[in-house]
Amino acid sequence: MKDPGELTARLLQGDRAALARSISWAENGDPRFARVLEAVYDRVGRAWRLGITGPPGAGKSTLTNELARLYREAGETVAVLAVDPSSPYTGGALLGDRIRMEERTLDPGVYIRSMASRGGHGGLARAAVDACDAMDAFGFQRILLETVGVGQAEFEVVGAADTVLVVVHPGAGDGIQAMKAGLLEVADVLVVNKGELPGADQLVLDLEEAVHVRLRPSLRPDRNTADAGPAWTPPVVRVSAKRREGLGDLVAAVDAHRAFLEQGGRLEQRRGERRVEQVRNVVAERLLDTLWGSRDLGRALAGRLDAKTTPYAAAAAILEPILAAIPYPESEPSAGAAPGGANGA
Amino acid sequence: MKDPGELTARLLQGDRAALARSISWAENGDPRFARVLEAVYDRVGRAWRLGITGPPGAGKSTLTNELARLYREAGETVAVLAVDPSSPYTGGALLGDRIRMEERTLDPGVYIRSMASRGGHGGLARAAVDACDAMDAFGFQRILLETVGVGQAEFEVVGAADTVLVVVHPGAGDGIQAMKAGLLEVADVLVVNKGELPGADQLVLDLEEAVHVRLRPSLRPDRNTADAGPAWTPPVVRVSAKRREGLGDLVAAVDAHRAFLEQGGRLEQRRGERRVEQVRNVVAERLLDTLWGSRDLGRALAGRLDAKTTPYAAAAAILEPILAAIPYPESEPSAGAAPGGANGA
Repeated sequence: MKDPGELTARLLQGDRAALARSISWAENGDPRFARVLEAVYDRVGRAWRLGITGPPGAGKSTLTNELARLYREAGETVAVLAVDPSSPYTGGALLGDRIRMEERTLDPGVYIRSMASRGGHGGLARAAVDACDAMDAFGFQRILLETVGVGQAEFEVVGAADTVLVVVHPGAGDGIQAMKAGLLEVADVLVVNKGELPGADQLVLDLEEAVHVRLRPSLRPDRNTADAGPAWTPPVVRVSAKRREGLGDLVAAVDAHRAFLEQGGRLEQRRGERRVEQVRNVVAERLLDTLWGSRDLGRALAGRLDAKTTPYAAAAAILEPILAAIPYPESEPSAGAAPGGANGA
Repeated sequence: MKDPGELTARLLQGDRAALARSISWAENGDPRFARVLEAVYDRVGRAWRLGITGPPGAGKSTLTNELARLYREAGETVAVLAVDPSSPYTGGALLGDRIRMEERTLDPGVYIRSMASRGGHGGLARAAVDACDAMDAFGFQRILLETVGVGQAEFEVVGAADTVLVVVHPGAGDGIQAMKAGLLEVADVLVVNKGELPGADQLVLDLEEAVHVRLRPSLRPDRNTADAGPAWTPPVVRVSAKRREGLGDLVAAVDAHRAFLEQGGRLEQRRGERRVEQVRNVVAERLLDTLWGSRDLGRALAGRLDAKTTPYAAAAAILEPILAAIPYPESEPSAGAAPGGANGA
């Protein structure tokens, strides 16, 4: 199954091996994926994509398994993409968890796939969106997109979802920690998992307060701007995935967020923004892969690298001919004030 | 202080305001930073850089404060750079912690700076290295580089350090979680903080076992390859930053790692690799800022974006004239097998 045309045909016939292969193409940056996507793109956009992120130990894998079970029991088909941006060496440490889910993969209504970092410039976020598009075109109705770590790369991955769940658990200062780690700003629904543990009540209160104090629209330039209507306030839902408690409330909160986005063109806007981001990812990855894959550039770089040469001097020598050649002139200064620019001098 | 020449002069005179300004220039991508760095680069490389990362709740801030205190008491000058890649909206949520450290900033031997994400393509990792270079050139002997979250972006930031501390704490499955999140592979020293809590013994054992089972050199292409000598085995150090217990052992472990790197050209190699990475960051950032800052490209993009056009088709239209113009031909396929390529079809 090496020909995109044949693979596309099999994909549309519901051949799971074709789906797996197309995702591998996306993961490996194989140009054949673009041809597959082109052929099935009119089928993309029907699935509802749930992003699930949060600190290690929050129980994201268990929660993902339970949500998959619930949606499945409600008669929906479910695809799970477990993304591990943090483990470039081990090639997807998540597989351990996924084995626990393998039993379910005998069910043709469920598809589970793990994806590890291919490292570098946004390649994983791009590949994760590609995989979701493939699962979507294949016909899965729910896509659960789970990340292992919690950080900028992880947020970029789940940020491509329609509804983002941020999962935290009771523990020393985790409420404050969650806010510190910027989790709050990416959340559409805040999930306090392990709700049976001491401190769960306090964590729920901390998060609810934080939501109302911190999430002023002014802090969220990328969200809820489709109309002048009310902004979305992320609800805080307490669950215990292990005990299967509170999951109905969580599903209801996701449905409420979906209903919110489906008004006033918000969904179209959000998905449009995600599409632009994906175009940028593809452009950046292809451009930088081309540069770093160039022996000529490697030679140019090696010839200029010693402890006496600043990275800027070495970079300038490489950039000069490129910037001179690019047909898109820079029309705005690249040195915009950073969010953190307020700190310091 | 808007002129790089004047700022450089003041920097070399030990003017902290000049240091702060130069770091702000680096943070904001201001081209003036390159000129400052050029003028002081011969002073860069004398400081020992400690990277400190780990999951939210592990107590990284407290540990960083305690290490700063210890090194200071030992007569060394200390600079702390607290990096928050995860909070593009709040502009550095870490500032809360840092206020607790302000008392110490009355000491001219200590400098504390917080830096938040400016988002996007490796800009923060680049800016963090720039800030460390500036602190190094300024004359600080120890640089503590702390991140908030834990993930790919955070690893790229601390990866620029000479010695990377990965801080974890006892808690449900955190040992396994830490391994899952790929923390193990970036660690030079594994720190079990909150060592007074139940589960600390087990976590130490889990991590020691994991170090010996998982950290085969074959899994770590970028490490310990300077000679055919013995590879570094990350020690597991149990501490309680809050109770000030075990910190002496931690300092000793850092010294041991430093002694290891200072043999057989390992340090030169590691710093050389970091320098190459920094050049790549500068090139990528400048190139992509130029593209996304181009109104022409914005128009080209807007003209091609609708729900019917795949991101690849839109990207191809933008890339074609660029790739045609780049003087560095691609000499290797960009579609290398991904670490996760083994999964799936």
